[in-house]
Amino acid sequence: MYKVEVFVTYKESILDPQGEAIKGSVHRMGIDQVEEIRQGKYFELKIKKGQSDVESLVEEICDKILANPVMESYRYSITEVE
Amino acid sequence: MYKVEVFVTYKESILDPQGEAIKGSVHRMGIDQVEEIRQGKYFELKIKKGQSDVESLVEEICDKILANPVMESYRYSITEVE
Repeated sequence: MYKVEVFVTYKESILDPQGEAIKGSVHRMGIDQVEEIRQGKYFELKIKKGQSDVESLVEEICDKILANPVMESYRYSITEVE
Repeated sequence: MYKVEVFVTYKESILDPQGEAIKGSVHRMGIDQVEEIRQGKYFELKIKKGQSDVESLVEEICDKILANPVMESYRYSITEVE
């Protein structure tokens, strides 16, 4: 079994309105040391070992479902757990 | 400057309908090695050095804004970048 963590974030060039809104809330709390907040998606997957190579599986799932290739980029980490 | 990564996920006992829906899509793609998918939120923060201790700042932001304490749990990592 593999445990896979996927991090999906907006590409640098893309404005992140959600992150900006959260930063506003944080500043209104009086925490003005926060310079930037960017929000993304985080996925944890459990994948059984099989014939197919787990990396290509993860990339296919990211490319087709988890990330929007136009606006988002992703990175992932794979850990063998069993 | 600190770079902070925050990972917010549903508590184990909480059903994750979004994760279940994504798993269904992945299985319909023919990738049935995927046993479980859980979706969460991922945040990247840049925080200037200041008087307050950065860990307590991050926990205050998580407790009050980034995570819903009833349904979600969070973890974070802090890296000094400048």
